[in-house]
Amino acid sequence: MEEKPLIAVSVGDLNGIGIEIALKAHEKISKYCKPLYCINKKMLKEAANLLKLEIPDDFDIFSVKGEFEIKPGQVSKRSGKFSYDSFTEAINLANKKKVKAIVTLPINKESWNKANIKYKGHTEVLRDFFGEDAIMMLGCKKLFVGLFTEHIPLKKVAKSIEEKKLTNFLIDFYNNVNSPNIGVLALNPHASDNGVLGNEEVEIFKAIKNANKALDKKIFKGPLVPDTAFSPMSRKNFKYFVAMYHDQGLAPLKALYFDQSINVSLNLPIIRTSVDHGTAFDIAYKNDRKLNYKSYINAVKEAVNLQENKLS
Amino acid sequence: MEEKPLIAVSVGDLNGIGIEIALKAHEKISKYCKPLYCINKKMLKEAANLLKLEIPDDFDIFSVKGEFEIKPGQVSKRSGKFSYDSFTEAINLANKKKVKAIVTLPINKESWNKANIKYKGHTEVLRDFFGEDAIMMLGCKKLFVGLFTEHIPLKKVAKSIEEKKLTNFLIDFYNNVNSPNIGVLALNPHASDNGVLGNEEVEIFKAIKNANKALDKKIFKGPLVPDTAFSPMSRKNFKYFVAMYHDQGLAPLKALYFDQSINVSLNLPIIRTSVDHGTAFDIAYKNDRKLNYKSYINAVKEAVNLQENKLS
Repeated sequence: MEEKPLIAVSVGDLNGIGIEIALKAHEKISKYCKPLYCINKKMLKEAANLLKLEIPDDFDIFSVKGEFEIKPGQVSKRSGKFSYDSFTEAINLANKKKVKAIVTLPINKESWNKANIKYKGHTEVLRDFFGEDAIMMLGCKKLFVGLFTEHIPLKKVAKSIEEKKLTNFLIDFYNNVNSPNIGVLALNPHASDNGVLGNEEVEIFKAIKNANKALDKKIFKGPLVPDTAFSPMSRKNFKYFVAMYHDQGLAPLKALYFDQSINVSLNLPIIRTSVDHGTAFDIAYKNDRKLNYKSYINAVKEAVNLQENKLS
Repeated sequence: MEEKPLIAVSVGDLNGIGIEIALKAHEKISKYCKPLYCINKKMLKEAANLLKLEIPDDFDIFSVKGEFEIKPGQVSKRSGKFSYDSFTEAINLANKKKVKAIVTLPINKESWNKANIKYKGHTEVLRDFFGEDAIMMLGCKKLFVGLFTEHIPLKKVAKSIEEKKLTNFLIDFYNNVNSPNIGVLALNPHASDNGVLGNEEVEIFKAIKNANKALDKKIFKGPLVPDTAFSPMSRKNFKYFVAMYHDQGLAPLKALYFDQSINVSLNLPIIRTSVDHGTAFDIAYKNDRKLNYKSYINAVKEAVNLQENKLS
């Protein structure tokens, strides 16, 4: 039998729901991987006690320095610092190839700010650490969307559609997801109706052609009419899409699969997936029945999936 | 018992699927309205013979001049002309208040072109006929989206977001749909994160405030974060949304409700709804099991609904 991949889990903000998810979903994710939790014994025991949960015997940890009192649902400098350290230890493990991938549980931006951490989130840390242009992809097993542009004003999107940059993006995207069939969205309504509603489709068309030529396979199809690209019939043809801008891809994705979606950082020397939700301070340590592990389970599964692709 | 409203149905291109839908769905739509079909006896008989369908006894027609041989699935000048005439007769009936609303079956743009009709579609005819800015709304019972901008290049959208124009649009939209709770989408990702990702949300915010003040009710909520506005939780709060641009509203709508959606022209002296599909020449007169009446039934129901709102 093939050995399960070792995957580092950064536990996120310990005042939030991350550690509860980690403990409750441990058995389930152990079917797919061997998790290594970036925490320490004392903090793990404290969290488990507060949650009235047993610590599973095979709950392996990689010890992260730091001790503090857990205050459920509170923004805190020390909790912010610890969640950052848990994440950077996970990065180090992956960078040294001690683990195959990392899965991150949610941090709190305010707590990072209180702890004087200059980053706004995980992806920024990764970009800075590796000095590489990470690709942001969100989705779930049924549908993944890679974002060509991310957090920029809508008015700047059209100017960003440029043949060479998009060609490189598409090739990078393919090399990471390894799908034989990827839909690339147009920018304009009706994919511009042959130039009547904009001209950026020309750049997109050329980039698709270039990328397919470089890969010597007809991987990329498009430019697809944006408003029908995510219709049920079109989704039968594509599991992976490239969107030209943030809401073009994420609004349909979240309309369809809000609970199940995860966030994946591609195009880095390491594999990182993440839940697509926050610390949910309002339900932390309350044994809340609304607690939903779908996003976490899916993040683990996709990390396993991606590291297998990397090997092939 | 209240009398059912009289509604004119323009039969669309007779070489397409429109008349088959009209015949097969007649009994069903007669539960909601009294349909008056804009066709003539000869053409109706020819279509029914070709389809091997009985003409229902109460299939009332308003006679439209014109005779030609039906050629299933073919682009044709004479069929184009007839579909245009069927539509303009329906408009006239509504304009003279002989009917409460009109429902349109699909026309073929190429056939209109061959018949030297200068318009590209129904909405253009309506704008020209009434000299008014129709509002385009698409959707189904569960979700309707009104479009503040429609068929313009994406790069022109941001410049079009302007307080006064949007205020007027919102007030007009409310006066047509009469919903007590309407979600208004932001323009930028994360609704700009307090101005970090664009500034058009300021205009949208002001327009919402103005419109609510003018209506003396808190009808409009927002600006909503675009990528989560259509998530299942958000859709529990809103049935009606105003989108700033074409794909922002239509991509999530069609991801969720492709088959069921209809097109509604608001803000005109008359009520007009339409199916959200084409002539489907490939399956015309083939008794195809894929033929789907959902969009047509929904178009009729919404026409009935809107004319009731108009009365109230």
